[in-house]
Amino acid sequence: PDSLMISPYIPCSQTGCRYVSKAAAKTQMEFEYDGPSMKTEVPGPRSKELTKQLGEMQNVGAINFFCNYEESRGNYLVDVDGNRMLDVYTQISSIPIVQTSPPSLLSAFVNRPALGIMPPENFPEKLSESLLSVAPSGMSRVQTMACGSCSNENAYKAMFIWYRNKERGHNIPSDEDMSSCMINQSPGCPDLSILSFMGGFHGRTMGCLATTHSKAIHKLDVPSFDWPIAPFPKLKYPLEEFKRENAQEEARCLEEVEDLIVQWRQKGRPVAGIVIEPIQAEGGDNHATPDFFKKLRNIARKHGSAFHVDEVQTGGGATGKFWAHEHWGMDDPADIVSFSKKMLTGGFYHKDELQAYRIFNTWMGDPSKNLFLAEVLNVIRRENLLEEVTRSGKTLLQGLYQLQDQYPNMLSSARGQGTFCAIDIRDDATRNSIILKARDKGVLLGGCGERSIRFRPALVFKEYHVHMFLNVFSDVLAEHN
Amino acid sequence: PDSLMISPYIPCSQTGCRYVSKAAAKTQMEFEYDGPSMKTEVPGPRSKELTKQLGEMQNVGAINFFCNYEESRGNYLVDVDGNRMLDVYTQISSIPIVQTSPPSLLSAFVNRPALGIMPPENFPEKLSESLLSVAPSGMSRVQTMACGSCSNENAYKAMFIWYRNKERGHNIPSDEDMSSCMINQSPGCPDLSILSFMGGFHGRTMGCLATTHSKAIHKLDVPSFDWPIAPFPKLKYPLEEFKRENAQEEARCLEEVEDLIVQWRQKGRPVAGIVIEPIQAEGGDNHATPDFFKKLRNIARKHGSAFHVDEVQTGGGATGKFWAHEHWGMDDPADIVSFSKKMLTGGFYHKDELQAYRIFNTWMGDPSKNLFLAEVLNVIRRENLLEEVTRSGKTLLQGLYQLQDQYPNMLSSARGQGTFCAIDIRDDATRNSIILKARDKGVLLGGCGERSIRFRPALVFKEYHVHMFLNVFSDVLAEHN
Repeated sequence: PDSLMISPYIPCSQTGCRYVSKAAAKTQMEFEYDGPSMKTEVPGPRSKELTKQLGEMQNVGAINFFCNYEESRGNYLVDVDGNRMLDVYTQISSIPIVQTSPPSLLSAFVNRPALGIMPPENFPEKLSESLLSVAPSGMSRVQTMACGSCSNENAYKAMFIWYRNKERGHNIPSDEDMSSCMINQSPGCPDLSILSFMGGFHGRTMGCLATTHSKAIHKLDVPSFDWPIAPFPKLKYPLEEFKRENAQEEARCLEEVEDLIVQWRQKGRPVAGIVIEPIQAEGGDNHATPDFFKKLRNIARKHGSAFHVDEVQTGGGATGKFWAHEHWGMDDPADIVSFSKKMLTGGFYHKDELQAYRIFNTWMGDPSKNLFLAEVLNVIRRENLLEEVTRSGKTLLQGLYQLQDQYPNMLSSARGQGTFCAIDIRDDATRNSIILKARDKGVLLGGCGERSIRFRPALVFKEYHVHMFLNVFSDVLAEHN
Repeated sequence: PDSLMISPYIPCSQTGCRYVSKAAAKTQMEFEYDGPSMKTEVPGPRSKELTKQLGEMQNVGAINFFCNYEESRGNYLVDVDGNRMLDVYTQISSIPIVQTSPPSLLSAFVNRPALGIMPPENFPEKLSESLLSVAPSGMSRVQTMACGSCSNENAYKAMFIWYRNKERGHNIPSDEDMSSCMINQSPGCPDLSILSFMGGFHGRTMGCLATTHSKAIHKLDVPSFDWPIAPFPKLKYPLEEFKRENAQEEARCLEEVEDLIVQWRQKGRPVAGIVIEPIQAEGGDNHATPDFFKKLRNIARKHGSAFHVDEVQTGGGATGKFWAHEHWGMDDPADIVSFSKKMLTGGFYHKDELQAYRIFNTWMGDPSKNLFLAEVLNVIRRENLLEEVTRSGKTLLQGLYQLQDQYPNMLSSARGQGTFCAIDIRDDATRNSIILKARDKGVLLGGCGERSIRFRPALVFKEYHVHMFLNVFSDVLAEHN
């Protein structure tokens, strides 16, 4: 079928010319709207009124607008003023398929059992059907958690416990371990560290925050740990065109990683684990090559550190594979893979060696989210959504390349895997203005890093939607040029 | 009506005698069962089989048994082997009313919006109806979070940000603040601390864990912060009988708190906040008097530290008031009150001064939980459940006092507020054996501290249930004597 082809865009070199794509052939999608429909500016009066109301109760500084989730369908988010927008951001990339829910899922969602002690009967079955059916290579165990930050916090704890057991040579703590930990002192609370990367984002609780280095505003005023921070490669795009320079840059960063591991061991704070995103998302959609990750994995192994791949934003299919790390083509890609967002529940997969009997809390996630995830995964398989993502993603990236050729002073570094794409804009102010203008034309986008726009559509974003987006984006760019 | 009276127990001094209470008069409760009904030992064969299955996927060390939540009703939890047990533990105290759910709530529970940026239209209304309708004195703002640990982590961050703004004299960070925080260094990541209490439990993520001191097993092998830890008063029960000794003990602890605040200021790690539970729950149901909390609140004020009351376990009505701190009778009890468990969602209330625009994550809780909470609060009001709790709690405590008189070598220190009660058992082994024996007779109990049993029934636990429990407990004690 023609949906397998990359659409042949009609090149358009004149400034201000509307980007024209052939793809008006809409694919079948029940219940979906035909296109955006804008009634007011955004936020409209009703959103403003509600923001004011909510402002009496809590912080509203980050609120864009209020939504009408009942009216939102497929790729369209409808706001409370009746504006219908094509959604290329999906709740900071946390909606897997659609805004609304199949009625079949409206079942017992209200109980909240303490999963660690009294799980419901169908819990093992639902875990198998949901999370374990998409377990990363080499991993058959998973621990659910309520959110992304808790997932990473507990993954770090699992790595620390694993590391200390390795140091002790067994699982049995000494009396000194037991008494010193009660007052926050070593050896019970050991001086261990997690190595992270500049530009990384792993959450905002205090352990996670010590490994997050994307924006100062996340970290400011919060006490932290003296843990090593390595440079993440700053590559040139498209990656294929700058292989040699990029390889040099990656080698420089890997060397620094090894230096830091040695330094921190010398200062008595060994690196128990390395944490990294397959694509640095909040930090600006920074990519690295499979070769970089393979070598990093080997460095971790060589120095006895655990290797934790944080797929909270990249996981769940948006890169065209279920996990972004599958693009590395490794049998043993990681010791821990954490997730949240599109997976609807937080949690982490881990290798058997990293099993930690002491990872526990009251809720340990929420089984209603597993039920919903099982249904989402069925839809992904039945409708071959990963293939769709790959196809839509190619079309999207191709379109971004063309627009970048057309507006070389405005756009650069188009990049992506699947529909998990991004492009750099001239400067921060222009980026923010473009996002707002696109929204007023009915397309929802998000920013990341210093001056990037990130594309995070749902898995049902078809080529038809890509062309709709590119047309609007082209109009907005023409206005800015 | 007679339900306001304390039931006149028939004293029973002979060893082995069944504890006899007059209260066979069951109150009306739709759908509830008549009493426990045991088919197998617990865990039964089906639970064991499921535990084995789940053991292939994750840790099962903490699992007691598997539940049939569809068959569970009111105060009765039914397991997968058909055993029906009176529930005096409620998922580590996290079920507010009943095990099953009113059908009216089975509505849109599947969307998971990013609440901080695109909340649903009814979000302010639902917040007002749910969390804000029970806001602690002096607080009109609330921030929802996904779980108890995240609630405390973010409450600590709010206190740190507030403290640093106070130090700077304004909200605007310096360039040095901004650059140093990116690499985890001061002044951007300042050397501030939270003062906590020995025996306290505030969660298991890394910030929370630095203030948790109830069991070594929670903290072991996880790096921590050098923060001050004060002694929590070790009082004698009943409190009324040991007023003078208890006042001395509380004065000793308060003096130590002030000393620690001064010491930590001198070592350049000032105390930004003090965190405390109104009743130390995990640590063994340790109580302190309203006078202690009033003086502690004043010490916090005097030294410029925020005062954070952690009501994750005590909040939601089990003490006979909606918040345990209401028993202190203060207009301005705290700067921050955190919650989770019975509230169905995590989060924290805070005074206006502690508003932190930088407290943010993707989900910020789950609005479906607010909907459910609003319904739960309606039931609590309509059915005067707090009065019921006070009544049942008095009957429970009275019964525990009598059993303690009857078994002075086995039981001591019966204590409690509302139905949030506990009693100490001779030793750890006997405590654990009593819990298991009670379960085999159809009563679910939980332990806490070194050798306590804690009672954590739901808010619909009536005097009828209290007597049912006391009869079984009496039988178990007779067997142990």
